[in-house]
Amino acid sequence: MVNSTSSRSHQLQKVEINVDCGEAFGLWEGGPDEELMPLIDAANIACGGHAGDPVIMRRTVALAKRYGIKIGAHPGFPDKTGFGRRLIAMSPEQAYAEMLFQVGALKVFLDEAGVPLNHIKPHGMWYIMMQDDEELNDAAMRAISHFKVPVYGLPNTLHESGAKKYGIPFIPEAFVDVNYDSKGKLLGVPGSRKMTTDDISQATTSLGKKGLVPAVDLSLVDVGVKGKPFTICLHSDFKTCRENVAAARKAVDEVNEELYNHL
Amino acid sequence: MVNSTSSRSHQLQKVEINVDCGEAFGLWEGGPDEELMPLIDAANIACGGHAGDPVIMRRTVALAKRYGIKIGAHPGFPDKTGFGRRLIAMSPEQAYAEMLFQVGALKVFLDEAGVPLNHIKPHGMWYIMMQDDEELNDAAMRAISHFKVPVYGLPNTLHESGAKKYGIPFIPEAFVDVNYDSKGKLLGVPGSRKMTTDDISQATTSLGKKGLVPAVDLSLVDVGVKGKPFTICLHSDFKTCRENVAAARKAVDEVNEELYNHL
Amino acid sequence: MVNSTSSRSHQLQKVEINVDCGEAFGLWEGGPDEELMPLIDAANIACGGHAGDPVIMRRTVALAKRYGIKIGAHPGFPDKTGFGRRLIAMSPEQAYAEMLFQVGALKVFLDEAGVPLNHIKPHGMWYIMMQDDEELNDAAMRAISHFKVPVYGLPNTLHESGAKKYGIPFIPEAFVDVNYDSKGKLLGVPGSRKMTTDDISQATTSLGKKGLVPAVDLSLVDVGVKGKPFTICLHSDFKTCRENVAAARKAVDEVNEELYNHL
Amino acid sequence: MVNSTSSRSHQLQKVEINVDCGEAFGLWEGGPDEELMPLIDAANIACGGHAGDPVIMRRTVALAKRYGIKIGAHPGFPDKTGFGRRLIAMSPEQAYAEMLFQVGALKVFLDEAGVPLNHIKPHGMWYIMMQDDEELNDAAMRAISHFKVPVYGLPNTLHESGAKKYGIPFIPEAFVDVNYDSKGKLLGVPGSRKMTTDDISQATTSLGKKGLVPAVDLSLVDVGVKGKPFTICLHSDFKTCRENVAAARKAVDEVNEELYNHL
Repeated sequence: MVNSTSSRSHQLQKVEINVDCGEAFGLWEGGPDEELMPLIDAANIACGGHAGDPVIMRRTVALAKRYGIKIGAHPGFPDKTGFGRRLIAMSPEQAYAEMLFQVGALKVFLDEAGVPLNHIKPHGMWYIMMQDDEELNDAAMRAISHFKVPVYGLPNTLHESGAKKYGIPFIPEAFVDVNYDSKGKLLGVPGSRKMTTDDISQATTSLGKKGLVPAVDLSLVDVGVKGKPFTICLHSDFKTCRENVAAARKAVDEVNEELYNHL
Repeated sequence: MVNSTSSRSHQLQKVEINVDCGEAFGLWEGGPDEELMPLIDAANIACGGHAGDPVIMRRTVALAKRYGIKIGAHPGFPDKTGFGRRLIAMSPEQAYAEMLFQVGALKVFLDEAGVPLNHIKPHGMWYIMMQDDEELNDAAMRAISHFKVPVYGLPNTLHESGAKKYGIPFIPEAFVDVNYDSKGKLLGVPGSRKMTTDDISQATTSLGKKGLVPAVDLSLVDVGVKGKPFTICLHSDFKTCRENVAAARKAVDEVNEELYNHL
Repeated sequence: MVNSTSSRSHQLQKVEINVDCGEAFGLWEGGPDEELMPLIDAANIACGGHAGDPVIMRRTVALAKRYGIKIGAHPGFPDKTGFGRRLIAMSPEQAYAEMLFQVGALKVFLDEAGVPLNHIKPHGMWYIMMQDDEELNDAAMRAISHFKVPVYGLPNTLHESGAKKYGIPFIPEAFVDVNYDSKGKLLGVPGSRKMTTDDISQATTSLGKKGLVPAVDLSLVDVGVKGKPFTICLHSDFKTCRENVAAARKAVDEVNEELYNHL
Repeated sequence: MVNSTSSRSHQLQKVEINVDCGEAFGLWEGGPDEELMPLIDAANIACGGHAGDPVIMRRTVALAKRYGIKIGAHPGFPDKTGFGRRLIAMSPEQAYAEMLFQVGALKVFLDEAGVPLNHIKPHGMWYIMMQDDEELNDAAMRAISHFKVPVYGLPNTLHESGAKKYGIPFIPEAFVDVNYDSKGKLLGVPGSRKMTTDDISQATTSLGKKGLVPAVDLSLVDVGVKGKPFTICLHSDFKTCRENVAAARKAVDEVNEELYNHL
């Protein structure tokens, strides 16, 4: 049973926090990566699509290596102007090749630094659309399968079924600084309400203990992470990102202490 | 003497022809790659800097594989508007990371297709400047050394000494559709005179047999390839590229028949 | 009745041909503008969105001025990679400002050359989407109204009603080198069948005399130009554009001779 | 003497402060324009070259109009990645057309808002290079002369002589948050030392009263503004820009009170 063993080895043992990093380019600044890295478990590094350039990618890999955190690739629509948060029409051939290109480019900096690629997680509108655009999801997953690492994604969406279809280990992910709609579908940054650190703290605890999170309309929705470790994503480009991540860290640590300390 | 053996295995046995390929992007067309590939020994594939995008890169790798020719990476200044033929100021850190990024991105498509990277050859203004900008040359060569493949370059310039400095096998290259100045320094496309197919045929024969080529002022210059196999570069973005490559192919075949048939 | 007089002054007196020009940028080539201009009545000049840059725009204005043809602005989605032929999500605010920006930029070159802006015609996917995306159409038309010139557009679509709503003179346009669907809705370049010069000639004659054109499925559709002068658009980025424009020119001249010679 | 009268009408009556504004694009943030505008006399608005996009340009014009400050065009090298602060090789034809394009694009938003263009001031490396690259300076000044407004520039450099050559009113400018070298040549942002608010305050006072400013090596240099009103430039993309501008405002007000109150 090689596959299930191998798959199991990718499973998380505790709730983790991942943050998008390296989301700068040229002289344009991104988030305060160095302040956040001590508080998180995994950095998703932008690959030059929605953000990132060769220098930024290389520096961010070195920074994440210094803090000893997991490093994932964070490919986005090739659209720096829109930061990967608006629709750019892509054919399946384009989406497939774009995914290979961006992750391949990041890998060279990981190889140079001697650190492994831990996972892949698409960014912004690409990630959002992959929830229910089968063609786009399939193209991305086929490319992701090339790299033999897990994908972070939304449980009970095409993310999970696509990963399974292409033999990719799947790490369930949930969001606490942007919202889901009342049916549990993830909304993008533009569609979400403003989340305070209290909101984030409560959402994290609720997710960790009950797998439920307040939707954009404040109804509680099940986002498929109940009863098992998962990874929580927070944004580094929000003005309040330092406080947000600190709040989530505290809540995650409490959840882990209570539920997963025996692991 | 592992190094010298390994270095020797990279030496050319005959005069070859290399052409820059995949120099399109999005809906913007490049040269007639498919018509040229049957006539050449090696394709330098653009890596998304001066030209190329993920789809074009992947398709061009597949095409070169089908024709069974050698595949090199052809990184250029990150400047599609200027096609890598104008100066874009880059720090050594930027040049180093840019080289890793572009070659790394191409390699993922080679890996997918199951074909090896044969060589690396910088494009346009980057290649021109590396002749005598030591800082830029060193940054590029340091990055190139990461990939353990030969570099194509100009003999008796920083190209050759830089390759040696960083332990990179060096394949001498000469040009017949653009010109050198009277001191044997390569000029870019803008500075050269119009070369007819007869000019190209004669320049190729002269290079192959005597290592001499008519400079932009028609004086004969020694460009460092006398008495040994080398590779000739021709451009695929010239309107006359089909005839140019055919003329060079015929002249190269005659030179090889006369000088290197015994090898 | 100032408005109707003023509006009338914009009406065409004969069937005309317009072609998109200046669709190059940097070192990337566009169509053979100089060969086409003697055959056409109006040039739509790209404004740096889907194609065009300051030098190309200025040179193309000078060329059109030399041939004495009408000059229109040809704004497109800000997406050179996709040549304005794929969807780039734009808010109404973005579409409005983008239209002002692009036409404003072209106007400075017209002012410098001392020639007037004759019309505005959006490009590619923007033009296609304005057929039935009311928000996008309204934003574009509001911006167009700022320039006090006619818009070229598709009769009986939002193009025409939007122009009317914002007080913009409307010049009906029809296409003969790409197709309509069987309901008379214009398809983009990707969705159309290959049109020979005979197809183009027949389509032009049929349009001019009966207002009917063969759709993509070869059924005859009424595209709203029956019994009145209109303008025919042809593409300069098709390999066969020279023959296409020549064929349409001949057919248009015959239609004009027969129907509008008395005007 | 129409010219001298007209020229005189452009002369400043007091020392002023100008700041580059609208230096954002897409989702990438620029400086805190709204906080700075109450403190300054003139905003130089980025035109889509080094920064700025149609929406940002339009919003920034509206903001400057609301605060009743003068609005200038701030064209830069067409290089968002490098923020116009690195060399991008441009031919005179390109520089000329680029200047027309960018200022023309901004003017459409000024026309829409009903406010006049007050001046033009090139950005970053373009401005720096125009100090002593005659060809580049001439190309830019020829284009600037098209708009019939003053140029802001460095006294006793090609800026001033070029303006005179092309009949452009010249407003002398000095810098207090970046440095000059010991010969009074302006250095760019990269070459300057860190300036505290005290440094800025003292430099402003010294400039206003004596026309002297501490160079990068702390020697006092005469930058050509002694004894007459001039405009001081401050950067909005420095982290300390709020304090910098406030310090300069206070010092400028004192200088004006002492020297130019009678005007």
